[in-house]
Amino acid sequence: MAEAGQGTALPRLLTTPAEVRAALAGRGRVGLVPTMGYLHEGHATLIAQARAECDVVVVSVFVNPMQFGPTEDLAKYPRDLERDLGVAGAAGADFVFHPAAGAMYPAGFSTRVEISGVSEPLDGAARPGHFTGVATVVLKLLNIVQPTRAYFGEKDWQQLAVVRRLVSDLDLNTEIVGVPTVRASADTPHAGLALSSRNTYLSPEQQRRATVLSRALRAVQTAYAGGERDTGRLRQAGLDVLGSEPELALDYLAVVGPDLRDVPRLTDDPLNRVLVAGRLFGVRLIDNMPLGVAPTVAAASAAAPSPSAPTPA
Amino acid sequence: MAEAGQGTALPRLLTTPAEVRAALAGRGRVGLVPTMGYLHEGHATLIAQARAECDVVVVSVFVNPMQFGPTEDLAKYPRDLERDLGVAGAAGADFVFHPAAGAMYPAGFSTRVEISGVSEPLDGAARPGHFTGVATVVLKLLNIVQPTRAYFGEKDWQQLAVVRRLVSDLDLNTEIVGVPTVRASADTPHAGLALSSRNTYLSPEQQRRATVLSRALRAVQTAYAGGERDTGRLRQAGLDVLGSEPELALDYLAVVGPDLRDVPRLTDDPLNRVLVAGRLFGVRLIDNMPLGVAPTVAAASAAAPSPSAPTPA
Repeated sequence: MAEAGQGTALPRLLTTPAEVRAALAGRGRVGLVPTMGYLHEGHATLIAQARAECDVVVVSVFVNPMQFGPTEDLAKYPRDLERDLGVAGAAGADFVFHPAAGAMYPAGFSTRVEISGVSEPLDGAARPGHFTGVATVVLKLLNIVQPTRAYFGEKDWQQLAVVRRLVSDLDLNTEIVGVPTVRASADTPHAGLALSSRNTYLSPEQQRRATVLSRALRAVQTAYAGGERDTGRLRQAGLDVLGSEPELALDYLAVVGPDLRDVPRLTDDPLNRVLVAGRLFGVRLIDNMPLGVAPTVAAASAAAPSPSAPTPA
Repeated sequence: MAEAGQGTALPRLLTTPAEVRAALAGRGRVGLVPTMGYLHEGHATLIAQARAECDVVVVSVFVNPMQFGPTEDLAKYPRDLERDLGVAGAAGADFVFHPAAGAMYPAGFSTRVEISGVSEPLDGAARPGHFTGVATVVLKLLNIVQPTRAYFGEKDWQQLAVVRRLVSDLDLNTEIVGVPTVRASADTPHAGLALSSRNTYLSPEQQRRATVLSRALRAVQTAYAGGERDTGRLRQAGLDVLGSEPELALDYLAVVGPDLRDVPRLTDDPLNRVLVAGRLFGVRLIDNMPLGVAPTVAAASAAAPSPSAPTPA
């Protein structure tokens, strides 16, 4: 163990986190899939990828109170642990970690992880404190499980960016893996709708109308593929579609570069993205798509009013 | 590895961080001693204890810019890496981790760990942002080294409380060990002065006069030992001593219970403490002592104007 002996020998000097890690121990490959439960095909895809890449797969199921605002849907957020155990097991999970809220936030808890920059626009502006809650609970989960890789759905694109920043800034020894959003398949009436646990709040007809979000994103993708780089005009292509749904209370439709900030023009970058969020029939829905990538429909085997949305959000 | 097979087997349900840890891997005992360098006998004591208790001992040397205020002594804080390597090696360290500031805080860094409650009074009030900087860098160091135990000097009593809160709230798998303050020995002119790297700013005569802090703390200890529990009267016993030093600009003299908050009366508790901070000859000094514990002088072998103060503060 001790490379330098005791006494007066000089210790070996290390100057980077990577050196420290190399100098210290190692262990097996653990995959973590953090979720808020009510698992759907999107989560199953994350779990299956973890299963394929890791020796041990842990799924956390925790509806994190800290990331909900006082007027949000914490109390009614759908929960079904028994079903989640089945879905997680079928997808290849070895463990489900399901802590009580009091175990995660015992009396006297007083720590917050604040991330500036990437957490500020979009959902950060629409949901004050949300990403502080996300960053804090994700950090706790990463510390508890110490996974080699942690898997997050791209549906929560800004969350993914916040988590990547968290892991980088705090020197966590975990690789963050983003997994493309799973959508309702082409043979369903709500084809293209991003799977989300919150979809269970919607009737089948409401889910069909909620496809306005993915259709708007696709319109922006198409304009981008046609060479448009002016974010105002790209955005307008999406707004034209969203305007067809009178029940939509739009939070934002944003066309952004890698840092999630509005810019007047995009330069080519694989991280260019279009994001949308709004309230439809009283339910807050979000979605996003890459730009500069050929439009595709990631087809889920998901049958009709099944829910959907990877990770804690 | 995988206890539950793939396919449809139910995963094993875990409900506490401890269960997760037990279910997942294990490794050797790593001891970490976080410091800002310019090592003295106080640090050597921490390192020696780590050496006795762990298989591998890492000393970090990093003058953390994030915990210094804009008008504080970041630029002139004493540094001598070569000497630190010698002191660390002699005390039993295997590794010294000495990162560049740019490696700890690269461009784009945007994360802060905020701890409410215990970080708010005393030095938290006197040095806005200080404990946010401490908590953030300590978290980074703990994540990088992933030590079994991390050793902190009791001289920075509030820092120790903040770090304990950090580790508890964020589920870090590290045991925090507090080590009693080392003081200049009875055969020196500045007997009782808590060792601190900042003592190097003081002349021998100024160090002698700086013993007013430890003498004031001792007066409070004595009053407490005599049965006094009224914090106003305990505090006055210390103020009577401090009043003898006209050069002292006092920040605070506080008699507190376990949560570091002022109360009118103490109840018996081994964590009752008296703390002092102030500026003397332009140098900010802090010190503290336990109450309800027999007054002792922890004698260092420290010769005269050697510096002194465990850990990053």
